Amino acid sequence: MVKLDFGKTGGLVPAIVQDFKTGDVLMLAYMNKAAWEQTLSSGKATYFSRSRQKLWIKGNTSGNRQIVKEIRIDCDNDTVLLKVEQIGGAACHTGYRSCFYKKINPEGATEITGKPVFDPEEVYGK
Amino acid sequence: MVKLDFGKTGGLVPAIVQDFKTGDVLMLAYMNKAAWEQTLSSGKATYFSRSRQKLWIKGNTSGNRQIVKEIRIDCDNDTVLLKVEQIGGAACHTGYRSCFYKKINPEGATEITGKPVFDPEEVYGK
Repeated sequence: MVKLDFGKTGGLVPAIVQDFKTGDVLMLAYMNKAAWEQTLSSGKATYFSRSRQKLWIKGNTSGNRQIVKEIRIDCDNDTVLLKVEQIGGAACHTGYRSCFYKKINPEGATEITGKPVFDPEEVYGK
Repeated sequence: MVKLDFGKTGGLVPAIVQDFKTGDVLMLAYMNKAAWEQTLSSGKATYFSRSRQKLWIKGNTSGNRQIVKEIRIDCDNDTVLLKVEQIGGAACHTGYRSCFYKKINPEGATEITGKPVFDPEEVYGK
């Protein structure tokens, strides 16, 4: 059984989440040991929410779950790469498919790319 | 000019590095404000080495530089996504193309995928 190095960032490792078909990077989240073990055993992407300080089964509120298709770890066992099937078509709470919808242009300003897939107000209420 | 949120992880933001052609995730590194600004101004991926506690122009020792082709940031401005041209064919100090050369199999053990592109002993000495 692989052992991840949770010591470098206060008990958390970053998890890069990639669409298993297109290769698009959808988001970055964090896992503590419990989130990592639950992801392995359930096959559903589970993270640790730093803002809410608790386990976060991705999509439990929005329905936009992530089915894990492949898991990789990096050379020094302190970063996870999940290849997932993104249910509902969007990973970002803003409604965009990917959290990385802002591109830096040559002047150093941000430019929005793409369009939201869902309306966050409808999905999360208020 | 965009402002990144360096406050959540002690002055650093994670940077996901992706091959601009294949979409393969090559590595994850960290940037402080100086590394971010130098990446923007130079077009060469520059990080902050947590182990050496100093600015790290990727490839300065190995020659395996990363030419930045596109920069994205995420919804809450605390993660960077770099799309790069990987000079020398390998991003990982182990000689593998990607740092994510270890796959988790259904039993929870790691399996090595692919083969090293270079011999680290030749590149880094020792």
